[in-house]
Formats: sequence, structure tokens, C-alpha cells
Amino acid sequence: MLPTNKKKIVNDPVYGFINISYPLAFDIIEHPYFQRLRHIKQLGLTYLVYPGANHTRFQHALGAMYLIELAIDVLRAKGHHISTEEAEATSAAILLHDIGHGPFSHSLEHSLVQVDHEVIGKSIMRDLNRQLDGRLEMAMQIFDGIYPKKFLHQLVSSQLDVDRLDYLRRDSFFTGVTEGTVGSDRIIKMLNVVDDNLVVDVKGIYSIENFIIARRLMYWQVYLHKTVVSAEKLLIQLIKRARELSTQGQQPLCPSPLSYFLSNAVTKSNLSDTDSASHIISQFLSIDDADIMVAAKQWQVHPDKVLSTLAKMITSRKLFKVELRNNEFSEQEEEQQRDLFIKMHPELKKYSHYFVFTGSVSNKAYQLSEESISILHNNGSLVDITSASEMINAQTLSKEITKYFLCYTK
Amino acid sequence: MLPTNKKKIVNDPVYGFINISYPLAFDIIEHPYFQRLRHIKQLGLTYLVYPGANHTRFQHALGAMYLIELAIDVLRAKGHHISTEEAEATSAAILLHDIGHGPFSHSLEHSLVQVDHEVIGKSIMRDLNRQLDGRLEMAMQIFDGIYPKKFLHQLVSSQLDVDRLDYLRRDSFFTGVTEGTVGSDRIIKMLNVVDDNLVVDVKGIYSIENFIIARRLMYWQVYLHKTVVSAEKLLIQLIKRARELSTQGQQPLCPSPLSYFLSNAVTKSNLSDTDSASHIISQFLSIDDADIMVAAKQWQVHPDKVLSTLAKMITSRKLFKVELRNNEFSEQEEEQQRDLFIKMHPELKKYSHYFVFTGSVSNKAYQLSEESISILHNNGSLVDITSASEMINAQTLSKEITKYFLCYTK
Amino acid sequence: MLPTNKKKIVNDPVYGFINISYPLAFDIIEHPYFQRLRHIKQLGLTYLVYPGANHTRFQHALGAMYLIELAIDVLRAKGHHISTEEAEATSAAILLHDIGHGPFSHSLEHSLVQVDHEVIGKSIMRDLNRQLDGRLEMAMQIFDGIYPKKFLHQLVSSQLDVDRLDYLRRDSFFTGVTEGTVGSDRIIKMLNVVDDNLVVDVKGIYSIENFIIARRLMYWQVYLHKTVVSAEKLLIQLIKRARELSTQGQQPLCPSPLSYFLSNAVTKSNLSDTDSASHIISQFLSIDDADIMVAAKQWQVHPDKVLSTLAKMITSRKLFKVELRNNEFSEQEEEQQRDLFIKMHPELKKYSHYFVFTGSVSNKAYQLSEESISILHNNGSLVDITSASEMINAQTLSKEITKYFLCYTK
Amino acid sequence: MLPTNKKKIVNDPVYGFINISYPLAFDIIEHPYFQRLRHIKQLGLTYLVYPGANHTRFQHALGAMYLIELAIDVLRAKGHHISTEEAEATSAAILLHDIGHGPFSHSLEHSLVQVDHEVIGKSIMRDLNRQLDGRLEMAMQIFDGIYPKKFLHQLVSSQLDVDRLDYLRRDSFFTGVTEGTVGSDRIIKMLNVVDDNLVVDVKGIYSIENFIIARRLMYWQVYLHKTVVSAEKLLIQLIKRARELSTQGQQPLCPSPLSYFLSNAVTKSNLSDTDSASHIISQFLSIDDADIMVAAKQWQVHPDKVLSTLAKMITSRKLFKVELRNNEFSEQEEEQQRDLFIKMHPELKKYSHYFVFTGSVSNKAYQLSEESISILHNNGSLVDITSASEMINAQTLSKEITKYFLCYTK
Repeated sequence: MLPTNKKKIVNDPVYGFINISYPLAFDIIEHPYFQRLRHIKQLGLTYLVYPGANHTRFQHALGAMYLIELAIDVLRAKGHHISTEEAEATSAAILLHDIGHGPFSHSLEHSLVQVDHEVIGKSIMRDLNRQLDGRLEMAMQIFDGIYPKKFLHQLVSSQLDVDRLDYLRRDSFFTGVTEGTVGSDRIIKMLNVVDDNLVVDVKGIYSIENFIIARRLMYWQVYLHKTVVSAEKLLIQLIKRARELSTQGQQPLCPSPLSYFLSNAVTKSNLSDTDSASHIISQFLSIDDADIMVAAKQWQVHPDKVLSTLAKMITSRKLFKVELRNNEFSEQEEEQQRDLFIKMHPELKKYSHYFVFTGSVSNKAYQLSEESISILHNNGSLVDITSASEMINAQTLSKEITKYFLCYTK
Repeated sequence: MLPTNKKKIVNDPVYGFINISYPLAFDIIEHPYFQRLRHIKQLGLTYLVYPGANHTRFQHALGAMYLIELAIDVLRAKGHHISTEEAEATSAAILLHDIGHGPFSHSLEHSLVQVDHEVIGKSIMRDLNRQLDGRLEMAMQIFDGIYPKKFLHQLVSSQLDVDRLDYLRRDSFFTGVTEGTVGSDRIIKMLNVVDDNLVVDVKGIYSIENFIIARRLMYWQVYLHKTVVSAEKLLIQLIKRARELSTQGQQPLCPSPLSYFLSNAVTKSNLSDTDSASHIISQFLSIDDADIMVAAKQWQVHPDKVLSTLAKMITSRKLFKVELRNNEFSEQEEEQQRDLFIKMHPELKKYSHYFVFTGSVSNKAYQLSEESISILHNNGSLVDITSASEMINAQTLSKEITKYFLCYTK
Repeated sequence: MLPTNKKKIVNDPVYGFINISYPLAFDIIEHPYFQRLRHIKQLGLTYLVYPGANHTRFQHALGAMYLIELAIDVLRAKGHHISTEEAEATSAAILLHDIGHGPFSHSLEHSLVQVDHEVIGKSIMRDLNRQLDGRLEMAMQIFDGIYPKKFLHQLVSSQLDVDRLDYLRRDSFFTGVTEGTVGSDRIIKMLNVVDDNLVVDVKGIYSIENFIIARRLMYWQVYLHKTVVSAEKLLIQLIKRARELSTQGQQPLCPSPLSYFLSNAVTKSNLSDTDSASHIISQFLSIDDADIMVAAKQWQVHPDKVLSTLAKMITSRKLFKVELRNNEFSEQEEEQQRDLFIKMHPELKKYSHYFVFTGSVSNKAYQLSEESISILHNNGSLVDITSASEMINAQTLSKEITKYFLCYTK
Repeated sequence: MLPTNKKKIVNDPVYGFINISYPLAFDIIEHPYFQRLRHIKQLGLTYLVYPGANHTRFQHALGAMYLIELAIDVLRAKGHHISTEEAEATSAAILLHDIGHGPFSHSLEHSLVQVDHEVIGKSIMRDLNRQLDGRLEMAMQIFDGIYPKKFLHQLVSSQLDVDRLDYLRRDSFFTGVTEGTVGSDRIIKMLNVVDDNLVVDVKGIYSIENFIIARRLMYWQVYLHKTVVSAEKLLIQLIKRARELSTQGQQPLCPSPLSYFLSNAVTKSNLSDTDSASHIISQFLSIDDADIMVAAKQWQVHPDKVLSTLAKMITSRKLFKVELRNNEFSEQEEEQQRDLFIKMHPELKKYSHYFVFTGSVSNKAYQLSEESISILHNNGSLVDITSASEMINAQTLSKEITKYFLCYTK
């Protein structure tokens, strides 16, 4: 039984109220591992461009849980059996889907720790499962896609999962980019299951098209906004320099668990060893966005000019200048900015690659994979969205769009 | 000077407050010709599918006025000179852009009156201009596109006019199809003028893409929703039968100005004659949605079985069954339904075309014409949206999408 | 079973989606008696002041049904047993709670028909129950408060019923008076049942206080806004004159079922006779807002100067001037305006009471009755809201606030 | 001139777009002193109860600037002259009104620093004014209420200032307590100036009443929510213990500028000395919410059991239990909890006052002072809101409401 009535309802500006329906969900949310997500922003440094974007992984996880419960109700109403245990496990799985995110989420993935957040997440889930006496078994099976009812996994992770439905809607809400709103309610009402696969009733086709387009808008307007990219690259350069100094035995002062990650590499193999994993996880769970920002403030006065310059830039929001375009930058273009930089900062000549560099971003992270969305027609046939839609050009969709950037400092 | 402080602000659920900034706007809004728009629904019979869609042409005209004033502020802030007189005239022009709409707006256009609403609108504007002692001269020039500053006309009527920006946002709001929301604010902020043409700063490209896609969503999800189409066709058949009976000297009872339109044809040539136009306009301005609905209720007991059947159907919302699809219906398909109908209603055999028929709808009304939207790049170059956008396929856009329907009765 | 999946979900701009969960609800909604509510505005002539207020009794009834189902879920989750049959009947009861409203709802209550809408409503329910083979029995018992579980009746009709929760929120939404928003979700979450009575958990006290204050705001800002009052009084005078002429054998032309009500009085005793009731009900169910507005347009050219003047005023929105204040108007004040009117319109001297008159409005319709709201404290005790709240002054609340108006014409 | 077009518009989820209209505003916002407000939450630890409440002082300051520009437009439209310089200075004044807030805003005021945030704020403004070559002179005069047009000061700071209008609306938005919404637009439209004083046109009286009541709701539902109070008290105890240890020469590890404030008292007299003030300010401007949270995480393993226990509690959100009620707690009640605590934690006996304590909260911070709001009647008379409102009881309003709490640990 849930402890008291008071704790079961959470206010959410996006959906109104979110009920915590299951004891397992309650116990996960109360756990320090999950509470930590309150201090990790959903959109990393995006708040430097969209000041409203201070929402956290904690809010997103609750929101995704809310949507998954709506979806389960819809599927049950359409005659698909889902037991209470399965519903509880599915809720737990979605609550934990981002548990492996570290400070600044995607921005520092692979900078601070050398593995995907999913890998860390799995280690954390295993640990939590031990603490919860194995109550996460079914949730982990659903998460891993090995539980028999595959569609439950697809609710948690697929092209139409509640993760995407929630983050698009939530990011649209908090950035104020209202036209990125996704009809999450309508899409969920149209979900169905055929042959153990999640599909969308044909009536929902326009909402799916809109979902795909809204996702594109959110990419370029928000997630890959050039100033957001510029800020993320700055943060990455800062951590890279701090790690570099650490390897050279000159680790800059910082909150202690953070220092662990500046001096050590975290790889899949570390994490496969239980003892080692346990230590890494415990360090990892101690850091969040605040540690990075405090470190950056402290590093402003560090004797290393590269580190202190980058630290000052991020602290005062004096970001890299950035150009973003469809074609690559030539070496000459980069060189030109590099020369200007060196002229201004001759003492940093050797480190100009920290301040002038090129790279690319693409919507790969959100790309439609081979598992496309199927539309269920009234006659029972299943048609791939790319064929079902008049508007959406299969070719355009499958193409990864890459943009190239040149970051530089004056 | 505007009469009193009290009357200058109108509450609008979409934008919050709408100020009536100009004396001319105030006088137009107070005029019975404009007040009449309170009784003409923006979306005709759409409320039979989306019960919230009871908003009127009156609200839309005020909303478009609000947006045009925002746009003028933006353009002025970018250094484009617009005098107070021009601003006032532009406001007046947009207020009057739909003044020629009759009952149920687009649904009955060409059924009740045989000309476009623009034609009637022009006659009404001329009449109103006389009553307002010529104060509408400049507004009419802007409306007609003959006023020197062409971009003012484009604000009123073009692919990116405030008419579309308001109706998409407003229709999305009142139908509850929230994912059809258009970033009207963002688009307006990005407006600019180059060589006397309205253009969009490059930063606004994603909003324009989204605007185009949201418009598509609204078409198929709302404007051309098959049940909406079915209701509109029913209304058209009803009026057609009433006109047919009238021609045969058997006009059914109805509110008197409506009876004028059942017995007379209104053509461009009638309207070009001042006296005749004056009479037509005065009749036209006396009818609104209510007359049609009251007539339909009365006709339920009319001896003509065709009329009474159609009248009962619309009154009780027993609409035609409708199939909507991408390819045409064969004569056999239509015939099959016709046979079924005749079997059930042998007495209506001669009139089965009122109850079983095919046709098509297309997004032509909203189609992108040759005047496409130009994007203003940072380097000053102007690029057509179809080339500027990675996503939008010029070919797809220019293609008119047609869907075919078969309406039938059981 | 509900016919098809497609028809069970309705878009609502206020709540998003409304499910039609029960076959009985579906059948009621499809019935012409209920469809008729699509043509009766929730707030009568309020749209003349708040142009967004075109929402209908149809929308409100669906919204109230939505809230009652939320409330039933909440109560069940707190351990109160409510069977499927009871839930279905409660839904039906709330759907039908306003079925007796005629054209312009409250504005014309007692003008057009001489009994309360509840009385007509009961006759209609009885008739509908016959047509539905007695399936409304339990719903009618709940509606009448004679069903054993009294709290179900209280959900439908009490100080905290879903009727009020929906209309306050909905009216706030459509008028754009957003600060009148009521936390309907929060209040519903806090509902509980003690000794078969609906109560509110103590945590909800601030929401209840806010509900009471928001209701006050909506009164004076919307429902009893002086211009709204002025418009309603104009409509009442119009109908009064039409009835007066009818009694004198000079009934003005109008849609036929309306003419019935201009010539006949409808009293409780008429309605208690089954045959007579059946005829009245059938006439009553044929009229809606449109009939009144069409009649008013027609009456503009009626030879009776009183009728035609009033008809022109309402049609062109040239309302009475109105003063609204806390103390009564003296006879002298009224006389002064009457004299001015007669000076301007000597021919209407005998009828000046149609154009210059005083009266009062009060918040009685919404007044807190003796059945006050109880707050359930954590220790199990029940305390009346007036004692439980620090802010709300019992005396102020129980006092009926009356304002006096003087309407006049120039 | 403002540098480029790009930087003038900020997305805000509450108001849509916020323009930065003045060069001075732009320079203030770009300054690191102001950027720092991005890292100070508007509502301190409230996010532990309302997970959406992550909005910052940065957002609030921009929002208040937006409202003040609306207000200036309204007043100008009513004929009150406000020059461009005055408008720019007023914008600057409101942007800076909260510049003196430190980590966790009100929660740690007087704990970390021993003066009000206004005192620190004034020092910061003076410093910023020097850096901006005196461009803040007029803004500071307006802020201090010594600029001749007193009503400009009242826009910045009074009972009806845009500060309150923004924070009520914004806090309502981000907490999801939607019923606390204030009609800021309507109130601003009703502002006027009489005898150099800001007043409200009589039509706005219901909005003002609602504003007062919504403020009460927000207090008790949010600002003084018992769990929020509990979290704030925990944070205060933590800092108190850290300071205590520091005084004893055992300062716990923490980010360095924070350590300054743990070891030193900041008083008005320190701040009146320019050199000393300069040092304090520079330290103060280096700390934000992140430093506190990082310190708390570090202190979890500190040898001092009091500090480490409090630090663990806040880090894992294991807050004090709290009772909040209208009457004081007796010594016996407190003693009883203290005994229980000591029984469980005999080693902390000497420090039980850190874990079991009583206190009170009141709505004093928001209390209506002697400067009440005046309502401007149509006849020109000014009436105090407490007399103008039928509902609002002057006595109730002026009474400070105090609630007493008992915090304890198990």
C-alpha cells in the first residue's frame, strides 16, 4: 500500500496532476538515485538561449510515467490484456529510462564518462534492483525488450515511445516554442497493438506526421540551435582541458567525486566488473549539474590560461562565435579564424584548437531507424508511415541531415 | 478621438486583450454590417464534429486586426516607415477582409449566392465607404493591392497574411487540435520588407515550415475532415432542393431575406448595377447562420419528401455516411449505394442524386500559388522557401492534393 | 457495446479529450433532444460583451460528464464503492442536468416559459426515459436525490457539484477572463465521502476558498456585467412586447414553434398533464437561440413601434444605457430619464416603461445555501468551510449581494 | 543602437516573447552580475514540492521588465507623459530590483548574509553604475523613490508593482497551481495616474480583489506550504551549523567564496565602507544555488555528526517532519518530540535544537501596508480598495496571519 494519500499526487505544469499509482513507482521516486535527477537539467545548457528551459530529468521521467499509464489505459480499453504487475513494471521501466544521465545530460555524454548513458543506467538499475530486493526484475526485462509482451517495451523505447512524446511536449512548453507542441494525447488515443507490435490507428496519421515535423522543428530551433551547440562545445572543451591537466598530474580543484571522473576513464569493461562498477556508480551518482558549474567558477582563477579562459567564458556566458551551415568549412576558413585568434592571443597559440574548431551536428540521435511506425488501416492492413503518408517523403526522412559548424573566439 | 476608454479593449481568449486603436476601426466594428459577423461561424458546420468550433467571423476579424498591428510595429522597428494613416487603413482593410461572407461562410458560398464572397465584400465595402464619407478609400486601395506600399496589401492578403496566421491559430484553439498551433508571434517577429515585398528573416525558416505543415494538418484533421465534408454537402443539398422548389414556384416557408436568395440568382452583373447591388446587399446583410438553421427546422415538416428528409437529417445530425479516399469512386461503387438507397426509399428514386453522390475536395483553397514566400538570408539574398528549406519538397508543395468522397444515405 | 471506436472521443478545448464511456451516455448524446443543446449558448447574450463566449450547453454538459467521471475515479480510489451501473447513471444524470434550458438559457427563463428550466427538464427526462425503455430510471433517482448513495446526487447538484466546476472553468476559458480559473482538478482530487456526504479533504481548503472567490469574480466581471445585464433586459423586453401583442391578437411573424410560446402560458399545471406536457415539450424542443434572433431580425420592420425599436436595438447591438450601483435608484432618477426619452420619442410615451426602467440583480442564483461545504480534517472531524477558513467571512458569504440598475434609452 | 537584431528577443513560456527595447537593458542583461541570476531559483527549495518550480530570478526580472513596458504604454495612452529616458531608466530599475538576491533567495536571506537583499542590491547597483559610466543614475533614483515622477517608482515597488504581478503569474505557471493566476494584463490595462500616484480604474476592482485572493492562495498553497517551510528550515539549520563550525575554526570544505560567508558576518556597516563593500560584493556575486548544493553533498561525509546528518537529509530529500497550525506549540509538545529524538540519537543530545524546533511563518512579507491601493471612480474620486470592495474586509486584510510550526526528525 502507498504510505499516505498526500504523497501520491504531483503537480506538473504540463499535464496538471500526475498520480503515483504504484508502490514500486513510489519507492523508486523516493530513492536518492532518482531524487538526483532533480539536479540534472533536461536540456543541459539550452537555458542559456531559452531561459525557461530549466526543467529537469526528474520532471521528464514523471511526465513519461504519466503518459505510459494513459497509454496502458487506452490499450486495455481496446481489449489488450495488461496485468497490474505488468503495468507497474512498465511504469518502473519508464521512470528509470534516463537514470544513467550525468551532469548536463547529452552535452557531456562521452566527455565526462566514456560510455553511453544507457550503459551506466543499466548498472544503476542492477544496483537499485538489489536494494529493492529484486522488485525491478520485470521492469528490467521490459526495458531490455526481453519480456514477452514486446509492445510494453515499445512504449518505453521505440520511435513512438512516451519518452519522445513527453520530451517534445515538455521541451516545447518550457522553451516557449509553442509551435513545437505534439498532440501526445491524440497519438496515445490512437495507439493499438497488432501481432504484439505497437501501431497507430489510421485516424492518427496526421498527428504522426505532425509529430515528425514538430520533432524537426525542435531540433533546429532548440536542440541544435547554433548558440546551444556553441555552449555545449564550450563545456566539452572545458572538461577536456580539465581532464588533460589531470592526466598531466595538474588536476584543478573541484568537488571530489567530479575529480574522480577527471582522472579516470570509465569504460564498459570497468562497468562489467561488479566491484569496480559499484565504485564508479557511487561516484557517478554523486555528481550533477551543480558540480560542473561550481568547478567552472573555481577554474576562472586557475593558472592554466586555457582552462581559466574557457571557465570565464562559460561562467559569464561569453560563448564561442559560431557559424552553422549545410556545407563543410574548408581548412582555409578555419585557418583564417585560427590566425586571428593567435594574433589576439599569442600566448595560447599552442592551444588554439580549444578556441577555434569545426565539427558537425546531425539529427541522427532522433533519426528514423529501420523500425518505422506502422499505421493500422480500417481494413486491418498495416502500412508503413512512409507509404501511408502523402506528405512525408520516405527518402527525405531516412536521410540524415548534417550541419557543419565553425566555432571561434575573438 | 475614440469615444470612451471603456470601449477600446476587447477580451479574446486567444490573445488576451485586443485594443481597438483607431477611430476608423471603432466605427467599422460598431457598424451593423460588421456586428452581423457575430452570427456567422468561422468554420460553418465544423462544430458538429468539433463542438468547440463555435467561434465567429467577428472574432477572427478582430484577431487578424490584432496581428496586423503587431506586424506593423515589427516592420516599423526594422526601419520601414508606415504612417499613422496607413496603419489605420491597413487595420480597416483587414477588419473588412471577410465582410462578404454569408451564412456558414465557405460551405454555402456558390450555393446561396453565385459569386465569391470577395465580390460581395467589395460591394459592401463600397457601400460602407459611402456611409463613412470616404474614410475607407485608402483601406480599399490597400485591400485591392493598388496602394503604393505593396507590402501592406501582402499583410492583408498573401501567402503569409495575418488572415491565415489568425485563422490557423484560432481554429486550432477552438477545435482543441492544439498540435495545429502556428507560431504566429514568431513569424510576425521575423517579417521584413525588401523591395516593397514582405519577406521572412532566415531565422524564421523553421516557423514557416511548421506553418505550412500545421496548415496541412488543419486541412485534413479539421477543414476537410470527412464528417465535416459530409455535413457541408448535406447543407448544400438542402439549399439546392429549396432553390429547386422555389424555381418551380413552390418556395418553402423561410425567413424573408433568405427567400430572396432562394428565388434569385446573384451574379457579378447584378452586382455591377448600383441599384440592383444596393438591394441585393441589403438582403444579403440580413441573413446569417440562424436563418438557415431555422429554415431547416421548419422544412422538416414540408410536404416535399426530399426537402423534409434533408432538413431532418441536418437538424438531428444524422449526416450522410461518407467515404474519403485518394482515388476516385467508380460509377459502379456509386451505383451500388444508389441501388441500396432506392430499395429502401423507392418513393425517392427520382431524387436519389440528393442522397447518393460523389465528388472531390482538395486543398486548393489554401494552395501555394506562384507568389511563394521568400526567405531573407543574412547576406541579403532572397531565396524562395521551397529552395531554402531542406525539408520542404517544392514538388510536393505545389501539387494539389485531391481526395474523393462518396456520400450516401441508408 | 459502444458502436465503434471512432465515436467515443470528443475534442474539447478545455480538457483535451472527452471519452464517452458508457452506451447510455452515447445514446443520450446522439438523441435530438441533446443535440439541440448545440444551438443554445451557455451564456446567452454574453457574447455581445465577450466575443469568445459562443460556447454551448452541449459543450458544458460534456465537460461536466468528464469531470464527474474523474470524481468517480477519485472516490473509488479512496475506497468508496460505486458500481458500473451507478457510474453510468451518474454520467447520464449530469448529461441531462440542463436539458430543460430553452433559448438563451437563463436570460429568457420565465419570459418565454413561465416555469424553471428544472421543471421542463424533468418532463423531458421522463419522455426520454420512455423512449429509452426505462434506462434512465437510476439516473433520474440520482438526479432527484432519492437514490440511496446521496453523494452521487451531490456530485450532480450541490454547492460543489461538477456543474459549477465545469461552467466556471469553461466560462473563464471562453470569455478570456483567465483569472476566473478554478482549480477543478485539484478540488476533484480532494473530494471524499463521509457518512454518505461529499466533503473536501483539508488540503483542499485554499482551492475551495479560491473557487468561491473566482465565482464572485465571474459574477460581477461576466455574468452580471452591466452590459450583459443590459442586453438580457433588452431581450426580455422584446419577448414581453411580442407576447403582449400576441395576447392582443396581433402576433408578429415568427418561426412557428416560437409562436406557440408567445401565445400560451406554460405552467406547472400544464406540464403535469401528460398529453398537454407532451405537446408543450415537443414545441419547446423545437426552439433554440436561432429562432429568437431570426424573429428579432424580422420584427425590425413590424408596424408596432415598440417591437420594431427593441428589435432593431438588439439586432444592431445598440443596447440600453445602463447604470449599475449598490443603492437603489430613486423614482426621480428614473423619472428624469423617462422624461428625456419621452421628449425624444413622444409617440412612445405610453410605452416608455419598455425603454426606461429599474431593477436589481443579485448573486442569489449562485448563493451559498444552508448546505455548506464541509472540510474533512486529518483527525476525521468535519468543519464547515465558513469556520475552517481564516479568510472567508461567514457573514459576508451568506449575505446576498444586490446591485441596482437603471436602464434607459436615448 | 542595440548591437544586432538577433539578440533583442527572448522566448518566455509565460508571455511568449520579451523584447529587449533599450540599450541600457541590453547591457545590464549581458553583464555577469545579471547573468548570475540564471543560477538562482526564484522559489528556492520549492521545487522539492512542486517539481516544475525551477524558474530563476533571471526569468522573473525579464518578465517584470516586460510588464513594466506594457504598463508604460498604457499610461502613455492615457495621456501621462513618460520620456524615452524615463522609460529606459524604469526598465533598468525593475531589471535590477532583485540583483541583491543570493543563493536560494529568501530562504537563506539573513542566514548566509546578515542584511536584507535590498542592502546588498544597492551596493551592487552602485558598482554597476560605475562600470556603466553613470548610466544607471536615473534608474537608481526611480528605484529609491526620489525621482520626481513617483508613479514610476510605484511601478517598480508598491503594492501593485510589476514585481508582484510577474511573480504571482510566473510562480503559478511553473508550480502548476493554475488557479493562482493573476489577471496581470487586465490590471495593467486599468492602471492610471492621479496626482502622481498609481491608481486603478474602477473597472479593475474585481481583478484587484482576485489579485489579493490569488496572492493568499499562493502563500499557503506554495510559498508557505508546510513541506516548503520544512525544506527551508533544514537549509537554514545546515548553514547555521556550518557557520558555527567555522567560528570554532573547523570550517567544512566548500567552494571558496562560500567559505568567506561562513566565516564572516556581513553587516550594513561593512557595506558602507567602499573597499570592504567592494570585496564583499565580489565574493557575493560569485555564489549561487549550486555552491550550496555542492557543499551540502560534500558535507555528507564530514565528521561533525550534526552537519553530516543535516547535509544527508537535504541531499536525499529526507526533510523534517513538520506540523503547521494556527496556534502555538506548547513547550511540552516540543519536548516530547525532542525526547523521542534524543532516544533515537543519544549522541546528538546536545544538538537536538537543530533537529527539533518550533517557529512561525506569517504572510507579513506580502502584507498590505499603510499605502493601500486606490480605486479611481468614474466621477474622479479615489477610494481605498478596502472601502471600495464589498467583499474584502479591511480588518481581515490588515491582520497578519501567523501559523506556527513544529519541525522534528525521527
